[in-house]
Amino acid sequence: MPRPSIEFWFEFASTYSYLTVMRIGDAARRAEVDVVWRPFLLGPVFLALGWNDSPFNIYPPKGRYMWRDLARLADKYGLPFRLPGRFPRNGLLAARVALIGAREGWVERFSQAVMAANFAEDREISEPAVIADILAALALPADDILQRAQAAPNKLALREQTDRAVELGLFGAPSFRVDGELFWGNDRLEDALAWARGERLPPAVG
Amino acid sequence: MPRPSIEFWFEFASTYSYLTVMRIGDAARRAEVDVVWRPFLLGPVFLALGWNDSPFNIYPPKGRYMWRDLARLADKYGLPFRLPGRFPRNGLLAARVALIGAREGWVERFSQAVMAANFAEDREISEPAVIADILAALALPADDILQRAQAAPNKLALREQTDRAVELGLFGAPSFRVDGELFWGNDRLEDALAWARGERLPPAVG
Repeated sequence: MPRPSIEFWFEFASTYSYLTVMRIGDAARRAEVDVVWRPFLLGPVFLALGWNDSPFNIYPPKGRYMWRDLARLADKYGLPFRLPGRFPRNGLLAARVALIGAREGWVERFSQAVMAANFAEDREISEPAVIADILAALALPADDILQRAQAAPNKLALREQTDRAVELGLFGAPSFRVDGELFWGNDRLEDALAWARGERLPPAVG
Repeated sequence: MPRPSIEFWFEFASTYSYLTVMRIGDAARRAEVDVVWRPFLLGPVFLALGWNDSPFNIYPPKGRYMWRDLARLADKYGLPFRLPGRFPRNGLLAARVALIGAREGWVERFSQAVMAANFAEDREISEPAVIADILAALALPADDILQRAQAAPNKLALREQTDRAVELGLFGAPSFRVDGELFWGNDRLEDALAWARGERLPPAVG
């Protein structure tokens, strides 16, 4: 039997994607499941639903709750968290770079560094200088990667990946796809991994 | 120290409230936490957010996902589930009755029976005859309870409880309140119970 795998759809602007990006690698390795990293953009997905901003901004009670929930969950997972000065940040450049990282094997550490910059260090991840810093700190050739990230074929690839997200019925991030099953939200990571292994879903902790 | 408790805010029309109504009693008894049952109506809460229907109907991709997620979760919890012929059903009468049940100690078994009628038996819970059947099956005085449920003071009490939900920042159901902390969704039941006990939040199953 081939090793099981899950598709991990995420967006760098997304708060709950932060939690999952930080923990999916370890969780999947423990579960012996491969992760196919699929960065995409929520903007077009939200526009298709009629939202021109994050629903956490459009619906203030949801937004207030989300920030508190995020702080509690970060604490639960032992992750640092600082309320970002701006939300949502534009994750376009980071997603273009991550697309290259997914092909070249460094998407996990790059994505973790970008997410930490956004949600633990309050840095402006839409700025090329910030992304270049992050790449350099990972000992990756920043100039070369940024150039390829912004070249037409890679821009098109991200656009196509985002179109695919809409086609697949995604409406938020993070999302997981396993054998045609869609799981939405950081809360469903464990269920998605169990599904990939062909197991019954794990019981709730209680 | 007094025994810890949580407020459980739920709506009979709500799919994820179904899951929690069926399992909160046992989970809370195991955790040695008391549950204060708070039936309310989502309609006014959603109207305050600009929605005149369930967001699962307004946003079809969210709705399609929710029904599949619900079926998977029902299976995970060992609960029966049948796609209801109508969604959302009007939970007004059931909520009025549950308000009396919360005072008189039979809210849990009544709520479980109504939720099973809606989401496992596809019965029309907005009909007084269905609610009367459910009360009678629980050996409760149906006529007397329905009369008190529809009397002015009880109608007002439900209206006030729903107003309170909006004031507290609730935007969906089920929700839990513990010492001023809000937790939203069936997925947060375990965290809410842990919070009530003053424990760190339980780790995710992995």
